[in-house]
Amino acid sequence: MRSYEVKNRTYVDDIKSLRLITAVKTPYLPDGRFDLEAYDALVNMQINGGAEGIIVGGTTGEGQLMSWDEHIMLIGHTINCFGTNIKVIGNTGSNSTREAIHATEQGFAVGMHAALHINPYYGKTSMEGLIAHFESVLSMGPTIVYNVPSRTSQDIPPHVIHSIAENPNLAGVKECLGNERIKQYTDNNRIVVWSGNDDECHDSRWSYGATGVISVTSNLVPRLMRQLMVDGKNDSLNSKLRPLMEWLFTEPNPIGINTAFAQLGVSRPVFRLPYVPLPLHKRVEFVELVNEIGRENFVGKKDVQVLDDDDFILIGRY
Amino acid sequence: MRSYEVKNRTYVDDIKSLRLITAVKTPYLPDGRFDLEAYDALVNMQINGGAEGIIVGGTTGEGQLMSWDEHIMLIGHTINCFGTNIKVIGNTGSNSTREAIHATEQGFAVGMHAALHINPYYGKTSMEGLIAHFESVLSMGPTIVYNVPSRTSQDIPPHVIHSIAENPNLAGVKECLGNERIKQYTDNNRIVVWSGNDDECHDSRWSYGATGVISVTSNLVPRLMRQLMVDGKNDSLNSKLRPLMEWLFTEPNPIGINTAFAQLGVSRPVFRLPYVPLPLHKRVEFVELVNEIGRENFVGKKDVQVLDDDDFILIGRY
Amino acid sequence: MRSYEVKNRTYVDDIKSLRLITAVKTPYLPDGRFDLEAYDALVNMQINGGAEGIIVGGTTGEGQLMSWDEHIMLIGHTINCFGTNIKVIGNTGSNSTREAIHATEQGFAVGMHAALHINPYYGKTSMEGLIAHFESVLSMGPTIVYNVPSRTSQDIPPHVIHSIAENPNLAGVKECLGNERIKQYTDNNRIVVWSGNDDECHDSRWSYGATGVISVTSNLVPRLMRQLMVDGKNDSLNSKLRPLMEWLFTEPNPIGINTAFAQLGVSRPVFRLPYVPLPLHKRVEFVELVNEIGRENFVGKKDVQVLDDDDFILIGRY
Amino acid sequence: MRSYEVKNRTYVDDIKSLRLITAVKTPYLPDGRFDLEAYDALVNMQINGGAEGIIVGGTTGEGQLMSWDEHIMLIGHTINCFGTNIKVIGNTGSNSTREAIHATEQGFAVGMHAALHINPYYGKTSMEGLIAHFESVLSMGPTIVYNVPSRTSQDIPPHVIHSIAENPNLAGVKECLGNERIKQYTDNNRIVVWSGNDDECHDSRWSYGATGVISVTSNLVPRLMRQLMVDGKNDSLNSKLRPLMEWLFTEPNPIGINTAFAQLGVSRPVFRLPYVPLPLHKRVEFVELVNEIGRENFVGKKDVQVLDDDDFILIGRY
Repeated sequence: MRSYEVKNRTYVDDIKSLRLITAVKTPYLPDGRFDLEAYDALVNMQINGGAEGIIVGGTTGEGQLMSWDEHIMLIGHTINCFGTNIKVIGNTGSNSTREAIHATEQGFAVGMHAALHINPYYGKTSMEGLIAHFESVLSMGPTIVYNVPSRTSQDIPPHVIHSIAENPNLAGVKECLGNERIKQYTDNNRIVVWSGNDDECHDSRWSYGATGVISVTSNLVPRLMRQLMVDGKNDSLNSKLRPLMEWLFTEPNPIGINTAFAQLGVSRPVFRLPYVPLPLHKRVEFVELVNEIGRENFVGKKDVQVLDDDDFILIGRY
Repeated sequence: MRSYEVKNRTYVDDIKSLRLITAVKTPYLPDGRFDLEAYDALVNMQINGGAEGIIVGGTTGEGQLMSWDEHIMLIGHTINCFGTNIKVIGNTGSNSTREAIHATEQGFAVGMHAALHINPYYGKTSMEGLIAHFESVLSMGPTIVYNVPSRTSQDIPPHVIHSIAENPNLAGVKECLGNERIKQYTDNNRIVVWSGNDDECHDSRWSYGATGVISVTSNLVPRLMRQLMVDGKNDSLNSKLRPLMEWLFTEPNPIGINTAFAQLGVSRPVFRLPYVPLPLHKRVEFVELVNEIGRENFVGKKDVQVLDDDDFILIGRY
Repeated sequence: MRSYEVKNRTYVDDIKSLRLITAVKTPYLPDGRFDLEAYDALVNMQINGGAEGIIVGGTTGEGQLMSWDEHIMLIGHTINCFGTNIKVIGNTGSNSTREAIHATEQGFAVGMHAALHINPYYGKTSMEGLIAHFESVLSMGPTIVYNVPSRTSQDIPPHVIHSIAENPNLAGVKECLGNERIKQYTDNNRIVVWSGNDDECHDSRWSYGATGVISVTSNLVPRLMRQLMVDGKNDSLNSKLRPLMEWLFTEPNPIGINTAFAQLGVSRPVFRLPYVPLPLHKRVEFVELVNEIGRENFVGKKDVQVLDDDDFILIGRY
Repeated sequence: MRSYEVKNRTYVDDIKSLRLITAVKTPYLPDGRFDLEAYDALVNMQINGGAEGIIVGGTTGEGQLMSWDEHIMLIGHTINCFGTNIKVIGNTGSNSTREAIHATEQGFAVGMHAALHINPYYGKTSMEGLIAHFESVLSMGPTIVYNVPSRTSQDIPPHVIHSIAENPNLAGVKECLGNERIKQYTDNNRIVVWSGNDDECHDSRWSYGATGVISVTSNLVPRLMRQLMVDGKNDSLNSKLRPLMEWLFTEPNPIGINTAFAQLGVSRPVFRLPYVPLPLHKRVEFVELVNEIGRENFVGKKDVQVLDDDDFILIGRY
């Protein structure tokens, strides 16, 4: 089902060179539908802040809470509005091979530049099954494989990556297992790696050969994260950002980023369940963190606020 | 769920001025999925042939046989590949108001320039229900309303059109009821109308005030149909095309166009049921028609063929 | 995908003998979901009133406004709760052969006793396509074919029925074209027919050989409709019911029945668009009709009411 | 959307007393659809073998590879065919609260006796989010909560279980964390627990207070597993079954059971990706295990076979 239109062609090398990719948050209207105006503003903030790519519908963007038609629509929308200014990487992975095939085919058809693929979480499979799963989708276009055992309960070991790397569409790996694993890939420049852990990414980039980061924190402070990835080793900036990173991951992501965005006034305080906001004392902490790092470094222009519990809307049917 | 990105904004007047809009056919792979390569080629032929707009997933494009995610994907794909060269009008209408709302919202989100809306066929409703249905979607963007009682079993009378025309998003009406009805709208230039009947469109355009046509025949001979709509009254060209138009509508559209495209080699001979090809003697007739009008006036470059029954693939599960 | 469990087996002859089949209305909650409690009460009223079969998700039940998963769920629910007391006929027809195949397969899998199949409305097709469409689903189980050109814009002519009647699963035809057409089928007892027009059904049954009726009116007065179909020719009862039948079809069905049920207090006054209630003066008329025929002959126990416009909830998103 | 029909009512205590619940495998046709005939035979083997409940579409049944409409259909089918002979527990859990609500509502509507609910795997959430998630579905009917950190990457700690146990619909917990955790629940008979690990279940049942097991192994040897759960402590039988259990979990479940069923000839050798069969040397091992334990103790009547790699059909699109 491939298109040969020139506009639809993205080179794998264009993906391999990206240093700052943001796993962008999806904002909602009070009835649970996407808030596309807020979303467009967020993507613009990323472009202005120096991000070179975004992940649409990643775990941060709550792809796991989207129906597939919502998900593909959001990828198509992002390409249509911003595709000439930023690389759009659709998270079309799934623990079901059928779903991964269908979504990836549709994502490339609407113009996404690359796909992000996870291994089959929850259901899991054997190493042979893992390779068969990835091979079902790799031929469709540039692909980043995502390894995050703390979510999937199953590590993608290097031998699997090396096996699928024979396909030239493999752009690289988003790796969350740490810098020693990253080093295994980057020694001799064999495999492009992005750190999937904001608190490690500075070292991954400057000491372990990572190309860059796929970041949650850059949703909030894109310019600073870009500085961290592009302008050279900077332990002082890294240290300055560490408390914010720790705050963001107090609870499973995207709980922190969702709470932060509502407090910054860049998205409505609407949560799709099972996510709920961080408690009051953590919301107070966030205001202090913003003040320490400097409001001007964060996205948005409103004053940062400590919202009350009643300010939040939690929805299960949408 | 609107986007305020500039790229997503289409002016109603840009739609109102289109003279040749093609209700483009959707070609399939042998397993029933879209054949996007063939589709891209078809859209390019329309652009090169002078069509100014296309309907994606109309009755000709077999929107009635698509799942909504396929349908929105095809709209997004078309916008992404061709949106700067041709106006893309998504048929996001439905006899279910919920579906029409959802699809129209998604269609505009992925960038379509206008929506085509049908009245609730089969289920039908009252005039009050009709107005409520159209008003549910008109606020979303430029809209063409489609009146085809021979499919819907219910006429949209002028008073309904005049009522919804208070919304500035109404670009106009695709009218199949004939030239007298068209005249009711175009007298005093009140409502823009496109003829929905190829065999009447020449007179609609030059004698009854229609702006242009939404055409099936232009799938085959875009340049000639453009000439008919743009270069002035031309009874001789109109007469020359009439036998082709009659052939195309021997059976309910898109049976004719599907058969013709397979014979011209611009799409594979794959039919989604309940459509089946025209019988052999009609396929022989088509070759004669092509020879009379001139192969060079038709899309594609292969020789026109009389296909055997066995050449066709008919599929019910896809 | 067939099941050989005994409980899942229905004989075609069990379907052929049904005299009163009600096309049951689907009631809604204020958020647009099904109101299953009200639905269960309605089905019980049909069982107690003497109906021998019900159509689930017909045009009266607004199958055209259901997603397929809702539709199959409702069939499964009905079978589970009432399958031993009434024949459950699922309207798993569609103008898309793919959808008809998928829904019919699922409907029989959850235990429906028979399928109702419409010809491809709106998209339409050739006679060959029509036969191919019906043959795609007939092998799955007992089937009633539904001919209603005033909705589909295309008559199913007798030669098509005779062609598909070679399959022993064809239980019969729900025919809306009138008694002369019915006679063509019933002469020599060749094809079982149910009238699809309440106002003609008495004559169809007693003078033209119809087996019974698939009725809208029986939603309101099941006992009287049973009397009309079972207890012998009864012109006086037929005349008594005619004004009610005329009232019910003032606007396209199910607008009348929906309005009536709200007034009788047996369903909430919730309409899925594009349906809207009958206007006030018709609602006044309905109260008069109930009083003339006798409240005790109607379903429900509450007083019949003239509802205000504000009492109704119309919903487009659900 | 609840139904008050008597037939739809299941008492929580009826669920709490089940000792042997089988997480039944879903067999497929070569095109990937469900093989309902084979499925019906499998369920009958469970009933005849003494299982008192089955999980439909659990991880063993590959609910993670089903579309929701397939999943609900399978629950409705099972209830319709077998609901009077075995308790049918639908795995209507999801990591998306919306999906869990929708599926659970539909599952109870088609008559399932209880729901199985997982915590939000992969996306994960906070403890407050976890409780909000479970509370969104608990009111709908009898519920078993499933804790399997080796799949979900997140433990459901006892304080969460105790919190939601205030709802009388909580029937109990399927616990995979081991016998010490089980003991925390069963001391003082506070919470009903089923072991989720076949290799521990004998001890869970007889030494740690578990009520029974939700088993994979019972797919193969239901009578022996029933003996293990019902007929008293039996170390010798437990030891005899251990090698089979170890074989079954060589790779992530349901890879083992799928391979075994194909070898026993009770399902076709069709795998939905990402699952692939165990390699040849493990298939040889399985034949030896069957011979040791005794073919007559296993389901099915065909000879057990060592299938070749080419005998298996692996499918990604279905």
